[in-house]
Amino acid sequence: MNDISDKQLPLQLTPVGEVRSPFKTPILRAGKSDIELEERLDKIREHERQIKNTVSELLIFDPWRDLLDGIEAFSHILVLYWPHLIDPERRQLQKIHPMGRKDLPRQGIFATRSPARPNPVLVSTVPLLAREGSVLKVKGLEALDGSPLIDIKPYVEVYQNVENPRFPDWLHQIHRDLEGA
Amino acid sequence: MNDISDKQLPLQLTPVGEVRSPFKTPILRAGKSDIELEERLDKIREHERQIKNTVSELLIFDPWRDLLDGIEAFSHILVLYWPHLIDPERRQLQKIHPMGRKDLPRQGIFATRSPARPNPVLVSTVPLLAREGSVLKVKGLEALDGSPLIDIKPYVEVYQNVENPRFPDWLHQIHRDLEGA
Repeated sequence: MNDISDKQLPLQLTPVGEVRSPFKTPILRAGKSDIELEERLDKIREHERQIKNTVSELLIFDPWRDLLDGIEAFSHILVLYWPHLIDPERRQLQKIHPMGRKDLPRQGIFATRSPARPNPVLVSTVPLLAREGSVLKVKGLEALDGSPLIDIKPYVEVYQNVENPRFPDWLHQIHRDLEGA
Repeated sequence: MNDISDKQLPLQLTPVGEVRSPFKTPILRAGKSDIELEERLDKIREHERQIKNTVSELLIFDPWRDLLDGIEAFSHILVLYWPHLIDPERRQLQKIHPMGRKDLPRQGIFATRSPARPNPVLVSTVPLLAREGSVLKVKGLEALDGSPLIDIKPYVEVYQNVENPRFPDWLHQIHRDLEGA
């Protein structure tokens, strides 16, 4: 039943643009897991506040510029991008402590939003502030500067079947810790 | 500023699983654009009713099975998949009539959810009904049988910044036409 023809394998992506952002380095870097939880929480809190208010630019490369036509009629878009600073070897990880927190039980990668995953295509839904030619201005995007853009999609509710979402305890714990203080 | 190392280019995906679905063929196929709008609307209406109530299975291949651990604590997941029946040549399209409707103005591909796009990674957020070993049961997924799975992510609100979404007239028109009758 699987009709992927040879010409489609391997599944290959071409960057269609690039993120311009003030965020240059990951906040949770490998090798930093030994710093104090409180110190880390402070940093993450501050970083999340920054993300919320930050305007990033999505620069679409010339061959794909006209594919944006009509996007400005949507208030929100999905941004698909590649976390290019993740070492390819980390795509082999199976389980991690969420946000590197050893006090929280390890979770399978598919149960987390860790950027280190077998196919690191990250998805974020954000408000679209403006289109200026080949540039989209968006708010609240966590993507680092220089991240290759994979795709832009309009936010459409029919692909978004969410009612009364439920989350695990560890995620509630993270949110409580980040809200506290 | 772009630090994608040579070992990451081209950006390459590995299917981590496969969709099992009763949907075997696309409802909007190329070459079918000449059938009557009313007839098409009837078919699409019926198809959308079916999708809503359909349970699909996401079969995760063995090497990635343990990456699911913890997913069952989430009520909703994002499914990233590859529309494998799309002819690779259609990845070159720039603009289309939404849903093939000649009565609606052409839109850039990034302003539509058309599966024919430069990097055809489709994203759908759906309720997770159950995990049974390496199989996830989900409801309301449009993906066709045999679609390669690219990624599974938990639905987490911090990556979902949507308040009072706004949509273009052509999308309202499509929804009105599908609700009518």
